[in-house]
Amino acid sequence: MKVVKLGLCGLGTVGSGVVNIFERNADLIRRRTGKRVVINHIGARSDSTQCDVANIKLSRDIFAVANDDDVDILIELIGGTTVAKDLVEAALKNGKHVVTANKALIAEHGDHLFKLAEECEVVLRYEAAVAGGIPIIKTLTEGLSANEIHSIVGIINGTGNFILSAMTNEGKTFESALAEAQRLGYAEADPTFDVEGIDAAHKLQILASLGFDKPFEFGSVSTEGISKITPADIEYAKELGYRIKHLGIARRRHHGFELRVHPALVPVKHSLANVDDALNAVFLYGDAVGGVLSVGAGAGSEPTASAVIADVVDIVKAGEAARVIRPKQTKGKVLPLEDAESSYYIRFKAIDKAGVMAAITSAFSNHGISLEAISQKEKQSAEDDQVTVVLLTHGVREWLFNQALIDLKALDGVVGDIAMIRVETRF
Amino acid sequence: MKVVKLGLCGLGTVGSGVVNIFERNADLIRRRTGKRVVINHIGARSDSTQCDVANIKLSRDIFAVANDDDVDILIELIGGTTVAKDLVEAALKNGKHVVTANKALIAEHGDHLFKLAEECEVVLRYEAAVAGGIPIIKTLTEGLSANEIHSIVGIINGTGNFILSAMTNEGKTFESALAEAQRLGYAEADPTFDVEGIDAAHKLQILASLGFDKPFEFGSVSTEGISKITPADIEYAKELGYRIKHLGIARRRHHGFELRVHPALVPVKHSLANVDDALNAVFLYGDAVGGVLSVGAGAGSEPTASAVIADVVDIVKAGEAARVIRPKQTKGKVLPLEDAESSYYIRFKAIDKAGVMAAITSAFSNHGISLEAISQKEKQSAEDDQVTVVLLTHGVREWLFNQALIDLKALDGVVGDIAMIRVETRF
Repeated sequence: MKVVKLGLCGLGTVGSGVVNIFERNADLIRRRTGKRVVINHIGARSDSTQCDVANIKLSRDIFAVANDDDVDILIELIGGTTVAKDLVEAALKNGKHVVTANKALIAEHGDHLFKLAEECEVVLRYEAAVAGGIPIIKTLTEGLSANEIHSIVGIINGTGNFILSAMTNEGKTFESALAEAQRLGYAEADPTFDVEGIDAAHKLQILASLGFDKPFEFGSVSTEGISKITPADIEYAKELGYRIKHLGIARRRHHGFELRVHPALVPVKHSLANVDDALNAVFLYGDAVGGVLSVGAGAGSEPTASAVIADVVDIVKAGEAARVIRPKQTKGKVLPLEDAESSYYIRFKAIDKAGVMAAITSAFSNHGISLEAISQKEKQSAEDDQVTVVLLTHGVREWLFNQALIDLKALDGVVGDIAMIRVETRF
Repeated sequence: MKVVKLGLCGLGTVGSGVVNIFERNADLIRRRTGKRVVINHIGARSDSTQCDVANIKLSRDIFAVANDDDVDILIELIGGTTVAKDLVEAALKNGKHVVTANKALIAEHGDHLFKLAEECEVVLRYEAAVAGGIPIIKTLTEGLSANEIHSIVGIINGTGNFILSAMTNEGKTFESALAEAQRLGYAEADPTFDVEGIDAAHKLQILASLGFDKPFEFGSVSTEGISKITPADIEYAKELGYRIKHLGIARRRHHGFELRVHPALVPVKHSLANVDDALNAVFLYGDAVGGVLSVGAGAGSEPTASAVIADVVDIVKAGEAARVIRPKQTKGKVLPLEDAESSYYIRFKAIDKAGVMAAITSAFSNHGISLEAISQKEKQSAEDDQVTVVLLTHGVREWLFNQALIDLKALDGVVGDIAMIRVETRF
């Protein structure tokens, strides 16, 4: 029986998961590939206490793995976009297939690396880069291969979803929910990448490039995080029949594509509204199949390793036929956020006196924007001369909504900042 | 560019969908396969008004397609297990790959046909046979290939789910919900296959064979339909925090496998509880990835055709590497239903007099079964000497529960039949 030799670079959480699964499920992986697949060489700066690598060759220099003739497939799990890029390039040039879980690398340098892989007649796969254990890249590129993809809407950052779930279900503030996420290891010490939507933007860019067959440029996703969401917003959204979720949204339109990551009110009846904790979920809409929703663990040692090994198995079985089709060379036109249509939730303080509410509603009706709901919340005390106003518009283009917002801000009776959250009802 | 030639047998709902998608999405299918894929020959007893086949060779004898040297891949959509079996055999023997949506054929004759395909060095694929447009066979066999599958729990009959949803959300009776399903084309004139669980049992058998790598025998799934579910059960389940769903459940246990299809109370917080209408959903649990849920259209023209074409695309891209691994030859041991553990919902009439409720609870406590809930419903009229009792047990083995049921039935105070529905809380 032919032996397929793996090189594994990076022995952190996911790397340890890969080692452990190969140890535990060796027989079934052999049966599913028809070959013996072994980890032959590990490159890691330090040892791991999470797995046993006693019988595997270990190098401190990860490039020793990329240069090892006894490695057929290199698994890149070191993260980052500098050394990781050099490593993947070296492996591809040495004729090795590469499997990576590195979303930043693929989002920033995917196009270059996919071309290099083709030139070198090897395969570069990256299922684990998006939505952890959910086989979403497989579903998108293979399962729905008969479809023109119309939209991709997902909860693709587990940390953010954990925080919003804790705010929704346990009444926590953003800060205390974040602290809990950090304590449980869901969030980094510096949580910027997760809570400001950068991680989700990387993933959305990857999915959109595949789904729409366009190599969208790095940085083309409009990105907004969840750090400004307050417990009051969560509560008011509930009253209106919604949950607040952090969504990545990619949508095909006639003259271009929407690519955006931001918090959104989702109708409580929609499946995405009820995907809680650190779970990820992606809703794909194809012209033939309609909507397909996939839900599962978006991160974690073995869920992510599960996706890494699925890529390895596909490469072992199919070789070059396991290549993910590289997006076309014609760049996709990304529409400005102002061009998108949605409903809007806003919350602000207003002076509690006659005529103010009328002026507020006029700020919208003057632009032809109708309101689905408007409510004045109870004052914190009887002496308070300000009330909180919560308002939900009907569907409107964002540029038009923004004009109403300018008028609203200019009103005498409106005080301070206006919090705005988009409402997603089309999937 | 190489041309891959398809033969299509059967031009009903799904066949028309295949023709229409190939017409509409020809360019993207060409791009995703790197080849031109054309429908070269159609075998159908009659014409279709749902698609345009004016430029395609048409035979009334479907075997003309299986014998056509100008066909590389045959798509079998005629249904049934007699002529369809002969047709698939003929195609395989003629060196053609075969794609089918025929769950009954795969459930009854899969093992034989998979062997024949291997002998003939061609591929037999059947993604569309289970859960329509959801790429569940791909997810199970490829996406989760690193995993030992522990359980498969799914809503895999859209007709049944439509009926239960209409009963739950619109308060319909089984009969009127069925009539509506028939009017909308979701249910056949003779609905037995769907409402008695036979269709779901076929699909569960296919998934379990793949997931557990055992060729389970046709007929090895314990099967119970939904025709006995009453509006009262739906309502009482709601009060207890559950929805009634028709589930297919396959579970790996230490000494064998559970394979069962039956109605079940599902906690309203679980995603499966909220999958409504004609949608299908499958929850897979793998040892590495944890739970992965997939939801989508389980039937219909283009959703099913989407799965058929995905199989075609995979075969065009990978040839023999697109083969779904055939389950091992050692048969799986199917555990008797009595061996399974779950909680139970029961509903029955009891005489409204002192001591009866005490006797009822004793019937369970005598067997060490504790009750999670017991409630006596309002009488229909003051003169009524009987009350409806609804009861929910804690988890218990079914053989033990059955003993309590015998004792319960023997009580003087218990009148008539006892309705029982299993409660699923483990996924």
